[in-house]
Order: sequence, then structure tokens, then C-alpha cells
Amino acid sequence: MAKKNVLIIGAGGVAQVVAHKVAQQAAEFGDLHIANRTKSKADAIVTSLRDKGHKMPFASHALDAMDSAAVAALIEKLDVKIVINVGTAFINMTVLEGCIRAGAAYIDTAIHEDPAKICETPPWYANYEWKRRDDVAKAGITAILGAGFDPGVVNAYARFAEDEYFDKIDSIDIVDINAGSHGRYFATNFDPEINFREFTGTVYAWQGGKWTENKMFEIGREWDLPVVGKQKAYLSGHDEVHSLSARYKDSDVRFWMGFGDHYINVFTVLQNLGLLSEQPVKTAEGQEVVPLKVVKAVLPDPASLAPNYTGKTCIGDLVKGRGPDGKEGEVFIYNVADHKDAFNEVGSQGISYTAGVPPVAAAVLIARGIWDVKKMANVEDLPARPFLELLGEMGLPTRVIDATGDHPI
Amino acid sequence: MAKKNVLIIGAGGVAQVVAHKVAQQAAEFGDLHIANRTKSKADAIVTSLRDKGHKMPFASHALDAMDSAAVAALIEKLDVKIVINVGTAFINMTVLEGCIRAGAAYIDTAIHEDPAKICETPPWYANYEWKRRDDVAKAGITAILGAGFDPGVVNAYARFAEDEYFDKIDSIDIVDINAGSHGRYFATNFDPEINFREFTGTVYAWQGGKWTENKMFEIGREWDLPVVGKQKAYLSGHDEVHSLSARYKDSDVRFWMGFGDHYINVFTVLQNLGLLSEQPVKTAEGQEVVPLKVVKAVLPDPASLAPNYTGKTCIGDLVKGRGPDGKEGEVFIYNVADHKDAFNEVGSQGISYTAGVPPVAAAVLIARGIWDVKKMANVEDLPARPFLELLGEMGLPTRVIDATGDHPI
Repeated sequence: MAKKNVLIIGAGGVAQVVAHKVAQQAAEFGDLHIANRTKSKADAIVTSLRDKGHKMPFASHALDAMDSAAVAALIEKLDVKIVINVGTAFINMTVLEGCIRAGAAYIDTAIHEDPAKICETPPWYANYEWKRRDDVAKAGITAILGAGFDPGVVNAYARFAEDEYFDKIDSIDIVDINAGSHGRYFATNFDPEINFREFTGTVYAWQGGKWTENKMFEIGREWDLPVVGKQKAYLSGHDEVHSLSARYKDSDVRFWMGFGDHYINVFTVLQNLGLLSEQPVKTAEGQEVVPLKVVKAVLPDPASLAPNYTGKTCIGDLVKGRGPDGKEGEVFIYNVADHKDAFNEVGSQGISYTAGVPPVAAAVLIARGIWDVKKMANVEDLPARPFLELLGEMGLPTRVIDATGDHPI
Repeated sequence: MAKKNVLIIGAGGVAQVVAHKVAQQAAEFGDLHIANRTKSKADAIVTSLRDKGHKMPFASHALDAMDSAAVAALIEKLDVKIVINVGTAFINMTVLEGCIRAGAAYIDTAIHEDPAKICETPPWYANYEWKRRDDVAKAGITAILGAGFDPGVVNAYARFAEDEYFDKIDSIDIVDINAGSHGRYFATNFDPEINFREFTGTVYAWQGGKWTENKMFEIGREWDLPVVGKQKAYLSGHDEVHSLSARYKDSDVRFWMGFGDHYINVFTVLQNLGLLSEQPVKTAEGQEVVPLKVVKAVLPDPASLAPNYTGKTCIGDLVKGRGPDGKEGEVFIYNVADHKDAFNEVGSQGISYTAGVPPVAAAVLIARGIWDVKKMANVEDLPARPFLELLGEMGLPTRVIDATGDHPI
């Protein structure tokens, strides 16, 4: 059987990682294509692949991914079988539509967003993606939603706890700590527009069988984690809560994001002034401007942080539950990644690395048929162990802290 | 002799005060005209004059004050003899040019600025206004520069110290404290664009017979002042230093502005992120935007603060010098204004009030012939006592703390 051609949509920091990881797994795939609104950015990734000595066939393309007909046409023209969408979160639905029309597998790493809306009604997946479930099944394609690190690997961690530890899960607390330092006054680790949008709305958590609502930075808790040590993290809204709450509806599902005081201060100032708003304002000269887009324009390009980024990230799931005997237990399933190692390997910082490796692992599992389920699935709906073991081979090893100590899976 | 018609250019918070104060002094003037780019704002001031029961003839006009021919034409059409320019600082030179062409007296309250430049070479007056000295003298018109509170009244305080206290002045320290509260998260007391531009450049002071340079918030000092008590103020760049240093070239001339920690934090965040820049940036969508104009657009309109503004301002000059016997002495010459009183009287907050009353006093002195000097002058070049006494009658009394205690002048 012919190897499947892969199309990466997007050419930011995560796309850079995805491209390098696909190239490292060249034996699994056919040709590699990279498409982006601004073609020169896709060209730059192709150049960086060549610089690393990769030799699989790759090419770059200009694509308006908001145009699903254009997406479908490109897929057909290039005979693409797997699309990895790591462009802005605003294009998910048009790219998915293109895959449905052209019969390609679809993988993304973050939930669809409408540029004009922040923090819609939970569960978020039900607002866009899940509405296309029947169409995906009817088209007979595989669509894997949220297959980055978080969402993505952390969903697999929950499934891993379900498969290998507990009969009944009481709570899933996902903790994301970036203990790295980029040396700039202030920067976001990925697209500032998406980054800030995560924190300007209501913080939804799934607790006691229902959605609870808090404000950002309202609930903070100190965590003591492997390698990164004691770190403060805050209850935050995040994609994976909106799918895990469906599968684990009798469990509490919470997401905790680590923030330093400096980040919180800058965020609070910008938020209180109205500079994080996605609603346009009018200047004295009559120009209509979306403040958040201007904040994005003045902040460092997340990709530019990579060369000087040092330190480590720790992201994991603390899962509490009960075994067959009803006895309570807990397990912390986690990964530690290093910013400098990521840059040395693929020219990206650690946050992009952790987000970019998992969708390639998902693509490999589709190519091998293990995850080629011919329907729409979130990561927790798919077998976890093959994914986590492959991630370990690809640079993101999973460890657990359980009753027997701290060890690899 | 016919009473002189007055034209106010601008329709912001200071213009509101100027209009009400001209109306209160109706016996000194002919008709009152208010011209602004957006005529509706001038209309609103006319309405507020009517609401207060003022009956002198007044009218509003649309005017592009960047067009000096249009300024001259309006002056001639309305037979205006005194122009009070309280529009944005970017229009000074075109309005002055209009006055020169049409033969009207000119008064402003702040130095000319080029929108594209921040903090030019000192002394700032030499970059624009003073270049027109000969033309003003040739036209035989009176042009009084910087006749607000600071610059303006504080220049007269220095001259008052020269006239009535010292043979030789060693230092002039101008201190501006706003101990009021507007109840908002953050706001500037006048046009944010001008307000921030004051603090983003080099801090020039005149010390030891030469210009010294510091950064904003680099040098702070606690002051213990009448009514407002102990307050921290920072060495800041300000217009009046750039004219007082010419007349008092053997004295140190410094300006100190009071700032709370919250203001400094917000300012520092915006400054470090690049959001106070007057240089355009390009958004991801390709829109060219000046960040500072967006910050201005999201901040409260300074005029909107007035109804809820409480507390007091204290602005004064600490002047040190030597009498005829060479004996060293010092005097603090100051005014205390109340935000609530200002709102009750003219519908504006205290900062607008202190800035708007002095140019009307200057206009009255021109109308009476006392300050109608037929040349260009900064306030310290003109007799101080008549100005300060008139200001006392108009709502801004001057007090002094000298060897004999704290008393009115």
C-alpha cells in the first residue's frame, strides 16, 4: 500500500516542530506538504528541514484555510491522506470541511474558535466540532480532535489511568507548569491572541457533575511537582475539560495553569484597561482597531523566543480514583520537557515542542492503522498506551508517580 | 473701544472650563466663539453654558485647526481679537500662523508637539514657537505661550519670587501633586496621548547651567505639602523648564510630578510592552496602527471623570534664593484646588479647571491692556502680581509659605 502523503496547515512555531517530526518519521509517510496563508513562512520551514539534512519529498504552498473549497482542492491535487492542522484556531471548521469533502484524515491540536466570541457555552466541542460527527462518520474519515499536549497527551494520561489504574475515577486535575525563562520583559509562549483569549473569559470546570464558573486567577493552588518543584497554578479554562467531562461525567475535571506574579500583573493591567478585547474600538482619528490584535503586534513572536529559552516544563494529570476493591488511590502521570533540548533538535522552544510532537504521533498511528478509526474522536476515546509509548520514542517520555514510586510507564 | 471677541479652539475638558470662565467674565469681552474639528463637541459646551444661565453671545463652529488659512479665515470672519488655543498640542503652530495672518492675540497652555516626535532637543520652545518671535513682533500681535497652570501659573510663581523675594534665584522646583481620586481602575487626567508622551522620553532638567538627562521615575523624592500632605513626586520633563531655564539660566530648574505606585505600574507595563509608542505597528492582518492611539481609545475620556472626582490638587514652586544682603532664603508659592468644587462650578474636574482658568485670566489682562505686549512672551516675561491677583478673584488663589508663615499673597 502506498505511503500516505501528509499536509501540514500553518507555519508557526508548532508547525515547525510538526514538520521536523514528520521528517524524522519519513519512513511512515509519503510526501510532506506545508501550506500557509503567507507562503514565505512555509518556505522557511522547508529551508530549516533541508538545513537539518532531511531528504523526504517536501513542498510549500499558499493556502487560505478559511476557504474549505481551497483546502479540499489542495488535498485532492496533492493526494494528501492526512492533514495536520496547526494553524490558528479560527480555521478548524473550514479545514475539517475540506477533509470531509476530499476524504483525508484530520488532526488538530486546539479547539475551534470564532474570532468574534470568547468563551462560549460549555462543553465547547459541542458548539462546533461535535456537530460534524455524523458527517465525518458518513465520509468514513478519521478526525482526531485536540491531539497536542494539552489538550491531547493529557487526555491520553486520563485514559491511561482509566485503563491501567482505576475502575472508577473521582477526579482529574491537569497541571501545566512552564518553569522556563525566555529572558524577555513579557511574551506569550504561543499566539498571544489565542493565549489571552484563554484567560479573558469565564473559567469553566466540571465539578460535582456540573459546570462551575470562576474568574481567572480567582482560585490558585501551590503544586509540588517533579523537576520544576513548588509552583503556583491557577484554575483555568481549557479545551480538554470540555471533552473529558463527557467521558468522565461522574469525575471532577479541572485544569491548572502555572503563572508567575509578573505575568499576572501584565495580564491584569492589559485586561483591566480593555486592551485584551476582541471587540473593535475606534481611535480619535476614526480608525477601527481590535485592541488584542495590537497587543499581539507589539509582543515578541513566540517563535523568536526559542534560541534563548532555557529551563523545563512539567505537564501532567493527577488522577484520583478507586480500584476493583473500592480502595482509593492516586497517580500522577507526567512529562518533563526541556526548552534548550527542543531548540537543539528542531529549532523550537519547549512549548511548541510539546504541542507539535503529539499530532505527528497521532498521524503515525493513523498511518499504521492503530488510530485510523474512521470517525471523529477525542484523544481519550482512543487507546492510550500505543500513543504514549510512541511519544516516548519520539522525545516526550511519560512517567508516573504511583504507590510504587516515580518511574517510566 | 469695542470689546474684543474671543475664539476658543478645542472642545475638550479644558475648553469647557475656558468657555465657562470667559462667560463669567463676559463684561471684559465681546462675543464668544468655540471652534473644534468635531462641531458637536463645541455644541455641547454651548449647551452647558446655556444650562448655567450665561447670556453673552456665543456660537460654535467646525474648524480644522491644522489648516492655518482656515484659522485665519474664521478669525477674520468673526472679527476675533483673542484666540485661546486649548486644542491638541499638535495644532499650536498652525493656529499661531492663523493669528499672525489675521492679526489676533494668541494664547496657549502647552508646548507645540510634532505627532511623529517625542521629546526633542531642549529647550523645546526653540524648536517651534520661538522661531516665530520676529514674525509675531512684526505682525504686532501678542502671543502668550504656556498660560495654563503648569506651564503658566507656575512660571508666574517664579517671576513673583524674583519680583518680591530674591535678588538672585538659586533653584526653582515645581511640584505638581494630584491627591484626587476618580474611582476608575486607571485614567489620565488629560488627553492620554499627550499625557504619556510627557513621560516616555528623556527627562530634561536645567541644573548647574546645563541640561541634565534622566529616565522617567529614575529620581523620586517625598514632598510634604500643604493640604495634600506627604506625597512622592518624580523628576519629570515638562514645558516650563524649557522657558524658565532661559530667564533663570544661573538657577536650577526642575519639575516634579506626583505618581502613585499603581499609576507607575500601569505605565511601566504599557511602556515596556511598546504600547505607548507613537510609531505604527502592523497587525497580523496587515493593518497599520499607532499603539498609543489604541491605548487612548480604551482609556476613559478625561472629561468623563469629572462627576465622580473627589480630593484636591496642590501645585507650587519651591524657590530658593538670596536677598539683597546675600542671605539665603526660600519660599513655597502654591495653589490648592478641589475637584468637586470645580465640577460644581463649571462641570469639569480639577486638573482641567487649573489648566483652563489661567488662559482666561491672560485673555482678561490682554483685554485690559496690561498684558497686551505686542510680542511673543512666556508667562515669566510678564508682570506676575496682576495675573496672580486676578486668578485669586477667578477661583485659583495663590498662597505662600515664607519666613512669616503660610498666608495669601
